[in-house]
Amino acid sequence: MSQIPAIAIHGGAWAIPDNLAEASVEGVKVAAQIGYKILQKGGSAVDAVEAAVRSLEDDPAFDAGTGSVLNTDGEVEMDAVLMDGKDLKCGSVACIQNIKNPISVARLVMDKTDHVLLVGNGANKFAEQMGVESVETKQLVTEEAIREWEQYVKFKVTVNTLFKQRNPIGHDTVGAVAIDTSGNVAFGTSTGGITAKMPGRVGDSPIIGSGGYADNNSGAVSTTGHGESILKVCLAKNITTLLEQGKSVQEAAEESLSAMATRVQGSGGVVVVDKHGNVGKHFTTERMAWSWIKDNQLNYGLNPSEHFTEIMK
Amino acid sequence: MSQIPAIAIHGGAWAIPDNLAEASVEGVKVAAQIGYKILQKGGSAVDAVEAAVRSLEDDPAFDAGTGSVLNTDGEVEMDAVLMDGKDLKCGSVACIQNIKNPISVARLVMDKTDHVLLVGNGANKFAEQMGVESVETKQLVTEEAIREWEQYVKFKVTVNTLFKQRNPIGHDTVGAVAIDTSGNVAFGTSTGGITAKMPGRVGDSPIIGSGGYADNNSGAVSTTGHGESILKVCLAKNITTLLEQGKSVQEAAEESLSAMATRVQGSGGVVVVDKHGNVGKHFTTERMAWSWIKDNQLNYGLNPSEHFTEIMK
Repeated sequence: MSQIPAIAIHGGAWAIPDNLAEASVEGVKVAAQIGYKILQKGGSAVDAVEAAVRSLEDDPAFDAGTGSVLNTDGEVEMDAVLMDGKDLKCGSVACIQNIKNPISVARLVMDKTDHVLLVGNGANKFAEQMGVESVETKQLVTEEAIREWEQYVKFKVTVNTLFKQRNPIGHDTVGAVAIDTSGNVAFGTSTGGITAKMPGRVGDSPIIGSGGYADNNSGAVSTTGHGESILKVCLAKNITTLLEQGKSVQEAAEESLSAMATRVQGSGGVVVVDKHGNVGKHFTTERMAWSWIKDNQLNYGLNPSEHFTEIMK
Repeated sequence: MSQIPAIAIHGGAWAIPDNLAEASVEGVKVAAQIGYKILQKGGSAVDAVEAAVRSLEDDPAFDAGTGSVLNTDGEVEMDAVLMDGKDLKCGSVACIQNIKNPISVARLVMDKTDHVLLVGNGANKFAEQMGVESVETKQLVTEEAIREWEQYVKFKVTVNTLFKQRNPIGHDTVGAVAIDTSGNVAFGTSTGGITAKMPGRVGDSPIIGSGGYADNNSGAVSTTGHGESILKVCLAKNITTLLEQGKSVQEAAEESLSAMATRVQGSGGVVVVDKHGNVGKHFTTERMAWSWIKDNQLNYGLNPSEHFTEIMK
């Protein structure tokens, strides 16, 4: 019997302001539907995840691709990663510039090189060799991102204080996990990082085991939240380890986020699918835009207690 | 009662040629003694690890700092990481150039920023801001590294074939783990990567959970070997997870390396210290230069069956 496919999406776990709330929820619903259609036609989990993340990157409501935030120099530096749970093949780019869809460059690293991770100028050089079009920075930058950066420039001290409180301004990461009809799992994560990050700063997002993990022996996870905290505890790998030990998707997500809060005082959010196709999400931030689709039912929410459902046409 | 301190070192797991064998063994013995002296005086595990790795970086027998291999463009791009098991604080640099001791820039990222990982030009800019002296590439490059690179340029196809066999030419990573008299563990890893890597390629070494991990609740690990394989399985985090589950240092190292060989056909080596101060090493490559010191006894070896001991003066 073939596996019932499923896809889950997040649009970043942070204190999403009201003016972005509706667009964020709409964006994760659209991305889930794009990915689910691929799965329904028998497409691979990797293809579904890539297409869903591209849609989130193209949506200016999210801090990834178009809509990415600016570093202290006012530049856009993006990170993205993709992993296939069948054979653990993965590709990742960090600190890449002037690219509309970093997730698709990560896909090319996975498919076309013997490497896993390319960073900085080398990542851009590779994208160019692969014929990926480069775009001007201003095409990626929204008025919202500029406003946040100007706030930083104006109130530098205040922002530094906020950083120390592990409560940076700036949107957050997008991500997707999926299981296809063959039972293969995959994850993808993409981000512009945090506003006023140092040039060259890379968070958890493009890092295998932190920004996500996918293994057919356990399941797939995509994470979001305070990157440095997630890196310190390898949040995604922790979750798949708990799945492998027989914990449910919900238990694994809740236990791992709770352990992260205890050990390094960090908050975040995750979407998870296990190898049986069970889907879940959890977040310890104020809000996380999330959605998932399974059995033609679209589930979504934003605030901690919310869980809406719609039957797909 | 205070913890009995210990330190363990590796100089890379690969088919070390005979002409480098003696220098490699001598190098890891010296590094262990440098780190151990710091621990004996009550110094921290982090300080011991940093000093030991600096000594390995300065030794041209190893592919880290001076002695780093060249990428396809004939450039040196280095990665290094350091982690404190007490509070999981860590710092990391990737794809940094023209720096004599990348491990000390990783230390500065840990101590002086709110970030974990800085890459490329951003990492160099930060080093400059911190007053770290930059050196010319030729000061880091040995005749051996140039010879390997020239081989690559001349026999490109052959080397590409070797890559696919997961048996690249080029030396490998150095690393250290330690436990101090307060019972804190730490790890450090540093590398120039693999000869003829693509510009911007980052392997496992600077990645928390892959190139190493340190947590007072379990222990510390530093890894070496085929970077892309190590990244896919988060080798270091796997080992500390097994330690946390009560496995011995030796069981955790052997099981994790064996699982990596099964899942992604990769080979490598590790040094490990657990939270009780038990020390171990294991490698699935032809050779790994390793050493450890505990209770004034220096242990070291290179070939699979070797285990020499010397009483320190």
